[in-house]
Order: sequence, then C-alpha cells, then structure tokens
Amino acid sequence: MDTKRTYIYRIEPREVDCLRRATLMTLVDLLLHTAGEDADRNGFGVRTLNLRNASWVLTRLAVEIDRMPAEYDNVQVTTWVSNVSRAMTTRNFDILDARGERIAGAVTNWAMIDLDTRRLLDLHQLPAYDSMTQDFPLPVALPARLSSPDAPDTFLHTVVYSDLDFNGHANSVKYLQWVIDTLPLEWLLKRRFARTEINFLQETRHGDRLTLRSAQTGDTLLCEIRNPNGEAVCRIAFRMA
Amino acid sequence: MDTKRTYIYRIEPREVDCLRRATLMTLVDLLLHTAGEDADRNGFGVRTLNLRNASWVLTRLAVEIDRMPAEYDNVQVTTWVSNVSRAMTTRNFDILDARGERIAGAVTNWAMIDLDTRRLLDLHQLPAYDSMTQDFPLPVALPARLSSPDAPDTFLHTVVYSDLDFNGHANSVKYLQWVIDTLPLEWLLKRRFARTEINFLQETRHGDRLTLRSAQTGDTLLCEIRNPNGEAVCRIAFRMA
Repeated sequence: MDTKRTYIYRIEPREVDCLRRATLMTLVDLLLHTAGEDADRNGFGVRTLNLRNASWVLTRLAVEIDRMPAEYDNVQVTTWVSNVSRAMTTRNFDILDARGERIAGAVTNWAMIDLDTRRLLDLHQLPAYDSMTQDFPLPVALPARLSSPDAPDTFLHTVVYSDLDFNGHANSVKYLQWVIDTLPLEWLLKRRFARTEINFLQETRHGDRLTLRSAQTGDTLLCEIRNPNGEAVCRIAFRMA
Repeated sequence: MDTKRTYIYRIEPREVDCLRRATLMTLVDLLLHTAGEDADRNGFGVRTLNLRNASWVLTRLAVEIDRMPAEYDNVQVTTWVSNVSRAMTTRNFDILDARGERIAGAVTNWAMIDLDTRRLLDLHQLPAYDSMTQDFPLPVALPARLSSPDAPDTFLHTVVYSDLDFNGHANSVKYLQWVIDTLPLEWLLKRRFARTEINFLQETRHGDRLTLRSAQTGDTLLCEIRNPNGEAVCRIAFRMA
C-alpha cells in the first residue's frame, strides 16, 4: 500500500507576476506537472498510456488558495489518488510552503480516453490503479458542475501555435490564462483567487475563434468560453477574496 | 579563474509543441533562466543588483538551432561571460543533447540599469565581474543591429497581465511568442529556426496596443513590433531552414 508523495519546486522568476508572486497559471501548471510525474512513477503515465493509444484528459479542477508563494520560494506539492470509478478518477493535492504550512489545496478529475475514437476507457483496465487509491480526506470540496452564465458573447481569443500542447489542442492552463487576462489589473493585483473551479468540456484547435460570456454575482465570477459553433468548451468560476 | 558552467534541464510536456519538440520560446526561456542562475551563483544576480536598485536588461539575442530537443530529452546548457565594456556584456551559450552533441548555440547582450532613472550603469562597478569573463570563441555570430522593415502595420497584441514579468513590463520571451504565433502553422511545423536575432529596444506595459510590420526576403523574415506612439520596441529576424 502506497501513501502520499511529495514533489518540491522553486517558484522561478519567469513564473511570477509584477508583484513577484506566482500566478494562478503557475500554480495550476505545477499541479498538472506533479500529476504527470506521479502517474509516470506509478506506471500509468501518459507515455505508458500512449503505448496502448490512450491518454489522460483533465475534466474538472478546483483549487483553493490561502496564500500565493513568492519568487524563489520553495513549495511542496503532496499528491494522492482517490475515488476511481469506471470513467473518472480523482487526484488530490496539498500545497505547502517551505516550513510545511499549508497554503493551498486542489482536487482534479481525470478521464482516460482512446486517442482515435476520443471515447472514455474503463479505468479498471489499468493494472495496479485500484491499489494506488488512498482514503485520505479531500483537501478541498470537489469541483462542481458549473452552469452557463446568462450574458452576451464577446471575442476572447483565436487559438495560436503557442497554445497547443502535445495533443495538438489548446493546453488546459491556457483557458485559465485567457480568462484571467480579461480581468481588471487592479483586481488581479489586490485580490486573491480564494476558490477557482474549472470544467473542461471540449478540446479546441489551432485557428478556433473563441468567445467569452461572464457574469458576476457578489465575489463570484462565472465565465464560459465558447467555440465558433456556439458550444461551451470550458466554464470557470472564480470566488475572489 | 573560472571556466564554463553547465546546467541540466529536462524538456517537460508543457514546454513542447504539437510535434512534441521544444518550442523556440522554451529554448530561449532555458537560456534566460540559465543566465539568471549563473549570475546569481557568481554574485551579480538580479537579487543582488536589486539591493542597489539596479537590474539586468537583455538588449540583444542571437540563437542558432541545428536540432530541437524533444519531450523528456535532457539538455545541457553551458554558459560563460565575455566582452565586458562599460555599457554592455556578452553571455554565451552552448546547448548540447544528453550525449554531449551540440544542438544549438546562442549569444546574448546585457546592460545594467538603474531601476529609477532607467539609465545605463557602468558594468565595471560590479566587483568581481571582470574576473568572470572568459576568452573562449563565440558560439555563434554576435546579434546584429536590425533595420526596420518597409511594410504596413497590422494589429499584433495588447499587453495583458500574463505577459508581465517581475519588472511590470512584458517578458522578453513574449515578444518572440507574439510574432511566432502570426506565422503559418505549416511553416512552424515543417521548418526550423536556423538563426534568430532579436533587438530589444523598449519596454512595454499593461494595456499597450502593439502593431507588427514584417517583410520576407528569401528564407529571412524581418519583423518589427511597434508601440502606440509608433516607436519600435523590438525587432526580430528569423532565418528559416
């Protein structure tokens, strides 16, 4: 029986904003990198899955931040897997500072797909996967199914080369970046992303012209990115502190 | 007397394009990260300079690529400093694959500025800097002073939050990314950036609406990014193979 594993990172100068604190994109990048490393180490990483023409797809994410790490800070990311069903697994994260104090937590949901048909594969096919799951309490509440905001569409972004990841689709973190870049700079510098939830609904490709609709209710901002067919590709809810 | 120093990196999944090769942005990011690390280690890093209200500014860069490293490849970046004048120093790079074969080389020019006045400082003020310079041959030809292309302006990009670095200006690598993202995808996937030269001329700030003019001559593409005042902020020359 395995337990939690911890990965250590340093927040590099290229990963901070003009307040010299890690951006939300940096933090999510570290979580996704940790997920990849830990899956690799457990024998079910993307490279292994690719050998049987399968891959992981991130479907939902929730991250709660108490304090953003600063430039040159070391952070410890502790991760473990829980709740494997046929179609979905949960990977959890505690993010600690160098002194071991918890500064953030996150929960992610993943599906395994066939790379040709893009259909879901049964996670119980993965040898040894069941034995990896841990019974620790969730670090934050599960990411919810987000609704569509009632708001007009405005142009957001056309998908370009630097957005594409190794699958040829826009990288998950880019959705977050495009939306955050529409927020007022003063907001970004004076407030904190207390809880962020993301639903990844569809992939986008080079040249896709995306639109955004967003609605604010109190401290919560609900956003939806739509593709040229008017389909939602990603929904994000920010609760600001 | 010091010699060259070598830093080792792995090309991570988030750093590759849809062909699973490092992007040019990734490679330049590694060079700038190496410059920062090596300067830190030698006692003249940004953190030390900040204590006397000074900082490094990248003014020119030339990078020649024979072969792009692939996802999960280890690369060795060897660096050394040469040619210190009052206003400008040169930092050089050899990039080798895991077997020690050279796959790329680069030369960068840096100035030291006062953070309040933004004026150049005398590099000979840096204790121990002169003793760090090495007399090895340059890995590639020095970056030239690029001219302005004769072409119409088209809208390029408005500077957003995620473009800003710790100085509050757009990160150097972003200039490269914005221009590369305007190139045809087929070009990017089928050709190679044999030599890229960049002149960084001015800083840009959040909300700056930038335009691009570019002219192609044979295998060379000359580009200029201009600010809302019509001033050139960056020129880039790509020679494609």
